[in-house]
Amino acid sequence: MFRKLLSFEEAKSRINEACPLKSLGAEELPLLEAVGRILAQDVASPIDVPSFNRSTVDGYAVIAEGSFGAGEDNPVVFKLVGKVDVGAPSNLAVEEGAAAEIVTGAPLPANADAVVMLEYTREKQGMLFIYRPVSIGENVMLRASDVAKDETVLKRGATLHSSQLGLMAALGFSTVKVFKTVRVAIISTGAEIVEPGRPLPAGKIYDINTYTLASAIAEIGGQPVIFGIVEDDDDKLLRSTLERAIADAHIVVTSGSVSVGPKDVVPQILNKLGNPGIIIHGVAVKPGKPVAVAMVRGKLVFSLPGNPTSSLVIFHLFVRPILLKMMGKQEYQSPVLRAVTSKRLISARGRRTFVPVAVDEERNGQLIASPILPGQSGAITTLSKADGYVEVRETQQFIEKGKEVEVFLFRNLREANVIS
Amino acid sequence: MFRKLLSFEEAKSRINEACPLKSLGAEELPLLEAVGRILAQDVASPIDVPSFNRSTVDGYAVIAEGSFGAGEDNPVVFKLVGKVDVGAPSNLAVEEGAAAEIVTGAPLPANADAVVMLEYTREKQGMLFIYRPVSIGENVMLRASDVAKDETVLKRGATLHSSQLGLMAALGFSTVKVFKTVRVAIISTGAEIVEPGRPLPAGKIYDINTYTLASAIAEIGGQPVIFGIVEDDDDKLLRSTLERAIADAHIVVTSGSVSVGPKDVVPQILNKLGNPGIIIHGVAVKPGKPVAVAMVRGKLVFSLPGNPTSSLVIFHLFVRPILLKMMGKQEYQSPVLRAVTSKRLISARGRRTFVPVAVDEERNGQLIASPILPGQSGAITTLSKADGYVEVRETQQFIEKGKEVEVFLFRNLREANVIS
Repeated sequence: MFRKLLSFEEAKSRINEACPLKSLGAEELPLLEAVGRILAQDVASPIDVPSFNRSTVDGYAVIAEGSFGAGEDNPVVFKLVGKVDVGAPSNLAVEEGAAAEIVTGAPLPANADAVVMLEYTREKQGMLFIYRPVSIGENVMLRASDVAKDETVLKRGATLHSSQLGLMAALGFSTVKVFKTVRVAIISTGAEIVEPGRPLPAGKIYDINTYTLASAIAEIGGQPVIFGIVEDDDDKLLRSTLERAIADAHIVVTSGSVSVGPKDVVPQILNKLGNPGIIIHGVAVKPGKPVAVAMVRGKLVFSLPGNPTSSLVIFHLFVRPILLKMMGKQEYQSPVLRAVTSKRLISARGRRTFVPVAVDEERNGQLIASPILPGQSGAITTLSKADGYVEVRETQQFIEKGKEVEVFLFRNLREANVIS
Repeated sequence: MFRKLLSFEEAKSRINEACPLKSLGAEELPLLEAVGRILAQDVASPIDVPSFNRSTVDGYAVIAEGSFGAGEDNPVVFKLVGKVDVGAPSNLAVEEGAAAEIVTGAPLPANADAVVMLEYTREKQGMLFIYRPVSIGENVMLRASDVAKDETVLKRGATLHSSQLGLMAALGFSTVKVFKTVRVAIISTGAEIVEPGRPLPAGKIYDINTYTLASAIAEIGGQPVIFGIVEDDDDKLLRSTLERAIADAHIVVTSGSVSVGPKDVVPQILNKLGNPGIIIHGVAVKPGKPVAVAMVRGKLVFSLPGNPTSSLVIFHLFVRPILLKMMGKQEYQSPVLRAVTSKRLISARGRRTFVPVAVDEERNGQLIASPILPGQSGAITTLSKADGYVEVRETQQFIEKGKEVEVFLFRNLREANVIS
């Protein structure tokens, strides 16, 4: 069957149009269960912060006007009327000529509009000598000067890191409304695939893709749901597993076994499930040309290649952006770094080519990107060496050796100690 | 009381010497619960991968020698003796002059040492015509050529991302031994501090540090244990809370309230708990000069400043590296980026100064670091604006406006959509 392959951009935009963004709602969580989650609404402050006029120094609260004219040789004398501590509400008020002892963080007593620092005063038998004048507002943080009631402090879509959660706490929130995480069903297909932990019969290999895909999903905050391994020649089981996965999850990712190739079993079943069924079958990319995408019962289903590195590349290109979008992270990017190619990177004729590369740091600090070709070396060697990929456009025949390129990373290399 | 402050380096090395690295052991987890965790042992492969000689193409398995001399005009004729599928063990063997149909990924039958690609053959009534010779090993991935049994594939200390977990699965592991995560007790002290979610009495403020510190701990994979708010004038409760925290957690972090200042309540109690008690009290840094560190009953206790941004900076400088070390991440670094200062950054005389900065991207892509001084603006404004900090050494009076500096980030700015 002849079919014209979609270009990379055509495939991306067709998936984006089909993405069922509205299927995920928001949920309310305790602050500390929301670390790394995405805010689902704007947050306005329910209070003034500070909620009182607050001293920023240790000293004496006064009406500033009474201190005017004070100097080192002619102190102004105030009458001490009490003390204000932090956190201790008081009914104290200062009148003209009166002063109240105050510590950093305590609320100013009524009428006071400034604080004289301790070091410019001397106390003697209930009387306070002030040796330097203060102006109105000096050493005072006014009510609402940090955050005013009803002020918007965080916007929908913000990622909740330590500062943002501290901010929510400061305003008195104990819970926060965040976007739900996406549930992603994962199915591995193939007659030769065995679950890790079991004995390995002759001629079989262990399942890799369930684990690479599930951890890549977990790393961005998604919730992988493992549906295990289904033999691709068992049409009935494959169909019922796909139906269960579609019913249970927000989105489904299958990875095909090498044996599927010409039979296209998964796409055939997805097309039968229908409405519309397959929306993409084959994209002009390398690796991953046979990738298929379906929309079934309002859910997206991705059918990825069986080779682990290829399926990880296709996951990063097509699935990850959709998962992030569904979780409210509209513009999240992969970590990127710039490196120099160790040899020529060759594109596949007429296809957007994503060359898996290893990144290494040379002694002089220069980062080097070396291509690793899935298929040329073993699946595991390739997977363990590839740190990310470099894009070669259809219009380029190759990228020359020694050229600076952008590497889109599978993970943070600094964290993995690959680079310093 | 006069005391000479320790330098930043002296404090760091005194903490490092005291760090109770041995207190954390390893635990065994299912692969998918180990995402982002640190491998606690070297991993050697228990199997050969592939565990059989594997065809890398669709075609016919033969003894290569029999194909020598084949050409487009003089095909060599083989007798077809059967078919090998993926995952289907067979007792098939090929003798001289015999060929077996084979698909990609399937094990070679006995005696076969090469695979002729489908496109260079033609089948007719049980006979196979081969139009091109193959050499020994052609289109075959030999047993153990990807990974050999007993080969070390991952090293202790590796972070388990998708590729590493895929690798473990490929070798048949269903569990992995990782370092335990560190349990960190968090105590907020201060008479004016109220738990978020409760009403705010006059003169009080909501607890921020419990939430900033707990999320910063969770973000690096630690396990925060919240001990709540203790009034710092309740010596007995503070002491018993510290004792419970020390007994329960691997490490304890308190943050002091502004009112503690001259009284140093927490350090006094820690010193009484003793053996040795306080090992550091006061470091020549800004912010965070009053920071205290104790070793009590084999556990480190950090007493951080009350100002949220200051306590977050001190957490990043002193506590975070220790937590990472305890969890096995020996050389983990904060994310760093280079930016240009928007104004002169001034150091505190004789102290290592860490200036909190906001990072913004200008239209031309230039990153600008603007200082935000805790204390000059409100605590919340400062906290929400600071993306990280810039270090100014004691030997520098200032860093000039317009100079390129390294910014140590509190979080990944790309992820937070601050920069593109």
